[in-house]
Amino acid sequence: MQKFHNAAMLVVGDEILSGRTRDANLYYLGSYLAKHGIELKEGRIIPDEHEIIMHHVRELSAKYDAVFTSGGIGPTHDDITADAIAAAFGRSISHDPRAVAILENFYPEQMRNEARMRMARIPEGARLIDNPVSAAPGFVVENVYVMAGVPKIFEGMLEGLVSEFAGGQAMLSKTLRIEVGEGRIAAILGALQNKYPDVKLGCYPYGHDGHYAARIVARHRDEKRIVEALSELRQKVEVEGFDCDYEA
Amino acid sequence: MQKFHNAAMLVVGDEILSGRTRDANLYYLGSYLAKHGIELKEGRIIPDEHEIIMHHVRELSAKYDAVFTSGGIGPTHDDITADAIAAAFGRSISHDPRAVAILENFYPEQMRNEARMRMARIPEGARLIDNPVSAAPGFVVENVYVMAGVPKIFEGMLEGLVSEFAGGQAMLSKTLRIEVGEGRIAAILGALQNKYPDVKLGCYPYGHDGHYAARIVARHRDEKRIVEALSELRQKVEVEGFDCDYEA
Repeated sequence: MQKFHNAAMLVVGDEILSGRTRDANLYYLGSYLAKHGIELKEGRIIPDEHEIIMHHVRELSAKYDAVFTSGGIGPTHDDITADAIAAAFGRSISHDPRAVAILENFYPEQMRNEARMRMARIPEGARLIDNPVSAAPGFVVENVYVMAGVPKIFEGMLEGLVSEFAGGQAMLSKTLRIEVGEGRIAAILGALQNKYPDVKLGCYPYGHDGHYAARIVARHRDEKRIVEALSELRQKVEVEGFDCDYEA
Repeated sequence: MQKFHNAAMLVVGDEILSGRTRDANLYYLGSYLAKHGIELKEGRIIPDEHEIIMHHVRELSAKYDAVFTSGGIGPTHDDITADAIAAAFGRSISHDPRAVAILENFYPEQMRNEARMRMARIPEGARLIDNPVSAAPGFVVENVYVMAGVPKIFEGMLEGLVSEFAGGQAMLSKTLRIEVGEGRIAAILGALQNKYPDVKLGCYPYGHDGHYAARIVARHRDEKRIVEALSELRQKVEVEGFDCDYEA
């Protein structure tokens, strides 16, 4: 059992950088970790290249409590993450008997082949991560959680890890929507942030039905502080004559 | 006029890391640059914090031909990107007369206030980036393009920059969908990649209607090479008895 307070994510994927695929895993991980009281502090998206993966895994592993990677652990030639992780930590990599057993159990004999069994290649000394969707396991080396890139599998793997890092106090958030452009309320917001330095106040403008509006998101581990800050904001904004309301 | 071949993107945004908002700009930029022959080589997502923005801007600026940032140049207290960029390059920052004129032209006098005019603060010596949506300009310092976080504005700014970096040969791609799990075709794919080392072959498995399939994406600047590689793949895969077809 290892508790951590912050984490980084390393998305390994040419397909994300080329704009072919829109990232789903970092998006999912961010809110999942926040619910469990862990802050996602940094995300990086890098190509499927051995040296590049090694470099970033090392850097993020030294900087944060935990690192989650996604992508590059399947059966094809472009799946090189496991080897790069092993190399990053100076570990050997080979077919892991535990992973071999899992794959043999999942694939009937006529479906086993060299490519599929490649998914049993795990760095020495790694812990396996259960894959409830398609069997081939992820793994943990030091503080790096190496997970699949297919979102359904990524999410399934994460679910099984929850006991490992749960326990922190969740980061809560509440949103007040104000029916005016952010430029009209920026001064009020700035003063409020000074008065509540412990509450993280973000302002997210958007346009709808031809007029501007802004969502103010307050984040804190203590709901009371959020309510205090947003109630005060609401009062100040309504005095100025702008409509506002909480969002679900 | 400055031509570049590769680029990185720095997304400044607590709201992306917390999972509140799903990134749209990196996704858009990746395919936009690919169409113009520029490779997006790395993406980073970082919190709205002065020192952190400075650190990453410097690192990416030194490493790549160009860096695009998104987010943090609006009127509110959490918009600190412009100051951090100025600091990263040791430049002063103040109200830029060109930007002031743009904002004064856009906002009628009764709508101008200190917060809105903050959007005219631009590092010394920067070039302005036209904002066709909401006037407040982005800017370019050295090889760093500082753009808005609101996707419609980000995209509008990018459109205006195209003449600046267009001219490279576009990276093209074509997709062959094969109706079988990737594990069954991994060996064929690996051999094909060895035969066509200049064609980037990616394999993206997915499940649909209860069975597995894989999309094989071939990428190259020369369409002929893509067609050669995928035609050969198609033939090999059909000999094995698997259905496949090109995707639009």
